[in-house]
Amino acid sequence: MAAEAVVVDAADRGLAYGDGLFETIRTHRGTLPWWLRHRARLALGAARLGIAMPDDARLDAVLTDALVRADREFGGEAVIKLVLTRGAGARGYAPVDGIAPTLFATASPVPAATPDPLIVDLLTLRLGVQPALAGIKHLNRLEQVLGAREANERGLDDGLMADADGFLTCSTRANLFARIDGRWITPPVDHAGVAGVARGVLIEQWRPEGGLRVERLPLAELGRVEALTLSNAVRGILVVARCGARPLDPLPDGLTEACAALAASHPAFLES
Amino acid sequence: MAAEAVVVDAADRGLAYGDGLFETIRTHRGTLPWWLRHRARLALGAARLGIAMPDDARLDAVLTDALVRADREFGGEAVIKLVLTRGAGARGYAPVDGIAPTLFATASPVPAATPDPLIVDLLTLRLGVQPALAGIKHLNRLEQVLGAREANERGLDDGLMADADGFLTCSTRANLFARIDGRWITPPVDHAGVAGVARGVLIEQWRPEGGLRVERLPLAELGRVEALTLSNAVRGILVVARCGARPLDPLPDGLTEACAALAASHPAFLES
Repeated sequence: MAAEAVVVDAADRGLAYGDGLFETIRTHRGTLPWWLRHRARLALGAARLGIAMPDDARLDAVLTDALVRADREFGGEAVIKLVLTRGAGARGYAPVDGIAPTLFATASPVPAATPDPLIVDLLTLRLGVQPALAGIKHLNRLEQVLGAREANERGLDDGLMADADGFLTCSTRANLFARIDGRWITPPVDHAGVAGVARGVLIEQWRPEGGLRVERLPLAELGRVEALTLSNAVRGILVVARCGARPLDPLPDGLTEACAALAASHPAFLES
Repeated sequence: MAAEAVVVDAADRGLAYGDGLFETIRTHRGTLPWWLRHRARLALGAARLGIAMPDDARLDAVLTDALVRADREFGGEAVIKLVLTRGAGARGYAPVDGIAPTLFATASPVPAATPDPLIVDLLTLRLGVQPALAGIKHLNRLEQVLGAREANERGLDDGLMADADGFLTCSTRANLFARIDGRWITPPVDHAGVAGVARGVLIEQWRPEGGLRVERLPLAELGRVEALTLSNAVRGILVVARCGARPLDPLPDGLTEACAALAASHPAFLES
């Protein structure tokens, strides 16, 4: 059976205003090991935007259907993208009561492995500071699109993004962990950026020597970074070999433990 | 014939990332008096985002179809919403070459008149500063959605929005013009906000006494504002009666000339 194209009403507020949320969920043998974490972030985003969170029965139905398609088309190792929008409504920014949220899921193959370790650099594009939207995975992603375009144009594997106040925040598609003076730091995501699911696992379960601090990382510190890793829920942990002209430690202390912590939580990352 | 529902591929980047642009165009007797202005802003946005601008034949076909529907359903006085996205593509933020942009238009009735003069206040929500996206009418509009929600919750007709640096920028759905010490000012839109089509007409063609200055408006100046008007391409010029507890001049010097300048450019605003 051919995959049926999923279509959305052109009046959907997800399209009109990016008025919605998404989750990109790595499968493993037809299951979603991190589903409860993705669900928690989705619920947080829904509460922040004032969108009704679908009940578990509806979420399960949509995800089960996507898993079946993923299994049929990609053999069980796949990425499920779940989208929740405020629904289709009349023109005008103000959210209208009584419209039914849109919920659907699509399946894609796991992306091809990127060159690892990565070559990155600081992008010229800065992230706007917006505490009301920071942390959640909403559909307003033009900054990431423009950032990814800049990274591509500069021949980078990914680009580091600082916010408008000059704090290093994330890459275009991952959270970042930097080692400075032998200690690991990851920036908070309360001004910009997304609270990544893999980041959450690492904050909870990775105990490198000296600890992992969640701390703002001024751009001035970038020159002192000794090692840099990027994490997201699709690719796990990727190590950065070089930031601009500066080579970084490709096998920093603590990396093995970070990968082990992630794999213990999500077996798709056992091999990474 | 019933209106056919316009649908969009769920993989459209307009939905996935807000990776696109729109124009909200007021019709008049089945024509679009400001089309060339809307087209110019759309072209600017397309260039900024790196989306191929559709040629005039395609734009004309889509708009003519929407005008026919508007005429049939709303009698010729309507609002046409034109949407251009980068098109449907694979997962991943980076724009992919070779996908066909999505272009469609929908028609809505002219919105019911708002109470005029308006009651507004400064919103607590600030706009992120993002020069790469400021000025263009892109699909990342969650700040406006959250701003409109706050305005509704506070019982306001609209809300004034300052940017993260503390400069008054716009309302949730309009550009603003403030009179201070007898002279009119409108803020630039190079850090946040949209370069409104009605705003463009007023900057070009309204010549109030003392001139109209395009100048940053620090929040500290808000207490000195004597009169405030809001403009957009759907509603024309609206006068603000009160900002928070402060009454403003409902018939300020220069207002008649502003309305005349707009009406001379777009006859739908003759009666306003």
